[in-house]
Order: sequence, then C-alpha cells, then structure tokens
Amino acid sequence: MDISPRIQSSFDRQSLMQTLGARLVETGDGTVTITAPILPTATQQQGFGHAGLTFSIGDSAAGYAALTMMSEHQEVVTAEIKINLLAPAMGDLLIAYGRVIKPGRRLIVVSSDVYAKTDAGERHIACLIGTMIPVDL
Amino acid sequence: MDISPRIQSSFDRQSLMQTLGARLVETGDGTVTITAPILPTATQQQGFGHAGLTFSIGDSAAGYAALTMMSEHQEVVTAEIKINLLAPAMGDLLIAYGRVIKPGRRLIVVSSDVYAKTDAGERHIACLIGTMIPVDL
Amino acid sequence: MDISPRIQSSFDRQSLMQTLGARLVETGDGTVTITAPILPTATQQQGFGHAGLTFSIGDSAAGYAALTMMSEHQEVVTAEIKINLLAPAMGDLLIAYGRVIKPGRRLIVVSSDVYAKTDAGERHIACLIGTMIPVDL
Amino acid sequence: MDISPRIQSSFDRQSLMQTLGARLVETGDGTVTITAPILPTATQQQGFGHAGLTFSIGDSAAGYAALTMMSEHQEVVTAEIKINLLAPAMGDLLIAYGRVIKPGRRLIVVSSDVYAKTDAGERHIACLIGTMIPVDL
Repeated sequence: MDISPRIQSSFDRQSLMQTLGARLVETGDGTVTITAPILPTATQQQGFGHAGLTFSIGDSAAGYAALTMMSEHQEVVTAEIKINLLAPAMGDLLIAYGRVIKPGRRLIVVSSDVYAKTDAGERHIACLIGTMIPVDL
Repeated sequence: MDISPRIQSSFDRQSLMQTLGARLVETGDGTVTITAPILPTATQQQGFGHAGLTFSIGDSAAGYAALTMMSEHQEVVTAEIKINLLAPAMGDLLIAYGRVIKPGRRLIVVSSDVYAKTDAGERHIACLIGTMIPVDL
Repeated sequence: MDISPRIQSSFDRQSLMQTLGARLVETGDGTVTITAPILPTATQQQGFGHAGLTFSIGDSAAGYAALTMMSEHQEVVTAEIKINLLAPAMGDLLIAYGRVIKPGRRLIVVSSDVYAKTDAGERHIACLIGTMIPVDL
Repeated sequence: MDISPRIQSSFDRQSLMQTLGARLVETGDGTVTITAPILPTATQQQGFGHAGLTFSIGDSAAGYAALTMMSEHQEVVTAEIKINLLAPAMGDLLIAYGRVIKPGRRLIVVSSDVYAKTDAGERHIACLIGTMIPVDL
C-alpha cells in the first residue's frame, strides 16, 4: 500500500477523520482509499453508522482522489456532492474508494463508493458523485 | 422553542450528534432546527468545519423534519441527499433548518439550509435536498 | 412582465426550447421564469410529461437566472444539477421558476422549482438545485 | 443486439424519445443502451446538445435498466436523478448506458453514463445517478 506524504499530511489535519477513527490506507493516481470503523460515537438512532459517517469518509476519499492530480500549491474543496445510500452501515469496517471521474482545471468530478466489510465479505452501502474545486494556497 | 419528545428521544440515540456537540433546538410540523458548534474535533485540513459536519446536521435536520409528519410506529432513513456548499463553515455556531418539501406515503422529499452564525449575522453555507423513506418499527 | 433582451436572444438560440414549445416569460435580477405546454411530442410512456421536459425547462430557467447576474461577455453552462420529481407532470402548462441561490465568480449555485398549472391551481412537481459555471465568450 | 419487447413497447410510447430521434439499441439484465443524434432541434445556445437532451436519454436508459429487473405488472418512475456534465455534447451520436446499481423492492438505484461518439472515438460527457420507484399498473 502506497501513501502520498502530501495526502497523508493533509489528512492528518482533518480532525474529523481522527474523531471518526478514519485511516488513509492507499493513494494512487486519481484514487484514494479511506477506512473507518463504526464507532459507538458515530451512530444514528438504530445503532447503524450515521449517514454523516459514511458521507464524511466518502467525501474525503473523493476530495483526496482529486488532490492526487493537482499541483503542490493547491488544495481542494467540495463544491457539491450527492450520496445515495444503498444499505445500512453495519459491519466491522467501512471502506471508501474515491476516484477522479473527470479532471479539469476549474472543476474535478469525483466519485466514491463505500463498502461495509464483514466476515461475509464487502457490501456496497453508498455511492457518491460530486464536484471538487481547486483552491490556490 | 417547542421540542417534540419523540424527536428528542430519537435524536438522543444518534450518538454522532453528541460527538459533534449538536443540539435539537426546535421541532415544528414538518420542520426541525439543529445547531452545532464547530468543534476542534470536526474540522477539515484548513481548520474550517468539515463538509461531513455540515452534512451530518443538515441530514439529521431534514430526516427529523420528515419524522415530525409520520406515525408513532415509523422511523425514517435517508435514501439520498445532495449538498451544495456555498461558503466555508467558519463561525461560532452552525444552524441547520430542515423542512419537508413534499410528504408522501413512500417517499418524503426534504431540504435543509445550513447557516454559520457569527457576530456579523448568519451566513448561508449549504443547501441540501434529499429523499427520506419511512421504515416500520 | 419584464424580459432582458440578452436573455431572450440566448433563449431563442436554444432550439430545444422551441422544440418543447417553451417560452421565456420573465427575467429579473437573479430570477427567470420559463413556461412550456406538455406537448404530445414530449411525454413519457404513461402520457405524462417526460422528466426530460421538466428537467429541460428547469435547467434553462436556472441557467438563465445565473446569466442575469453576469457580464455581457459571459455565457453560462451547467456543471451539475439534480432534480427531485414530486408529482407527475400533468396539466395545462408547466412553469419553471429559476433563481440564484449563491452568485460567485467561479461557480453560481442555482435552483428551479417547476409547477404544473391546471384549473385547480399550481402544483409543485419538481425542484432542482445545481451549479452553473461562467464561460467567457 | 438483444432488445426486450416489453422495454421496446414502453420506449415507443415515450414520445419525447421520438422527438429527440432516440433509439433503444440494447437491453440486458439490469442494463439498457439508448442512442440519439444531436438534432438541430435539440441544441443549447452555442449549438451543442442541450443538457436536457443528454439528461433525457440518460434518464430513460437508467429507468429502463430498472424496468428490466421488475415484474410484468410494474412500471417505473424517476424519483430523483442528478447529472454531472463532463464535456459539451458535440459529435455524431450520443450513447447512454443505463444500469442498475442496487435493485430493491421499494427503490432501485440506477446510473447512466453518456458518451458522445465522433470519428475520434467516444468521449464521456455526463454521468447520472438516481432513484427509480416501481409503480403497479
């Protein structure tokens, strides 16, 4: 597993990722993978992972996927993103696979697919598509 | 400020809301207001509130707005929701105003508008539109 | 009813609007209203207006709302837009009310609400939120 | 190329598809492909295909992909769908590939990817993700 120091450094400054117990597990060229447990502090009313948890790691994975394709002097912020929830967030670990659909100078279109891992395998629980915008540092 | 005991009870079981310091401050007929500070534990890499924070309270406010219009024997889950981020989440307090756009037996279309409050007033930082589905308990 | 010549001129070049029988009926400062009949040539399989009809006038109303706030040397294109359909498109006339939610130099966040008019009044059939980007001519 | 008679029959009743010159070219198990030319009657102001054209065939391909997985006594309607536009709709032919992401009894999550074909190949111009709901006939 290969991790870009630049992405790791930015990820470490996202305190919400630490609060959620999220980890950056892989960065590629236009792809980023983030995992998170379903902590007892991140649930909705039925005890499943809150949509906000799934969204947060999905959004960060998508954003960092965009960042892998940008210059050292740029950051990225989310302009908009939509999540379709496919199944409840239950299991041992959530895994968000972010990737760039379409790079661009002004806009980067990105997606994330989030899976819940259990002993039985990985279940697709959410898909996100959004737009990231570069911000000069 | 009027708060439905039923909504409060469900909200209290959403551990993510407590983790984020969120509070249920008003419930009406098809409307719910939730506030949250921007805790040092909920930021993105630049120190602003993470999109996941804004999303989480916006999603919960929208979902609970739907729940105010449903029977006692039903819960609600998010099928999909999209967020457009209008400005950075910076300020003293975030306020999410959820409301029902279109009630329905099978689907409830909802929206949330999230504002960041500072001494200078309230700034519109995000709008969400989504679909909630009723779940029988 | 006040109509900006610049918006009218661009609208007249959108041949799809003519194909759908759409008319530009009002332009304001950050707002545009477009109407269209439900032509027999624009239906889905049950005879109601196709989602593509509702989308098309909603998207154009939103885009032109953005254009009202831009310089003479700019056009606008849709980066992304989401539609929630609230009720079937049936009635005498569809009316799309586009407006700017958040102007910006790089992105303009816009919305459209589409209503179906009948003798009984106006029924809310769709809401759209999207992002427009300025393009220099 | 294999085409389900049931899908073809419903498609033939969507008059908007005929207006746009669209053709159903393939139906599979959870997949549907629709093509359309960029007619001079379906453009936006710069002469490219209107977002409404791209949306219309993308939405129909996604909806019919859902219909391939449903019983004979059901129809499908769009609850919501979002489109991200990646490039201008220019070329000889638009091709929309619809597929089911997640089937369900109450909701079917679907996607469409739309490509513009030219002599130089196929260019990805739009991606859509949405929710279809079954309707009993």
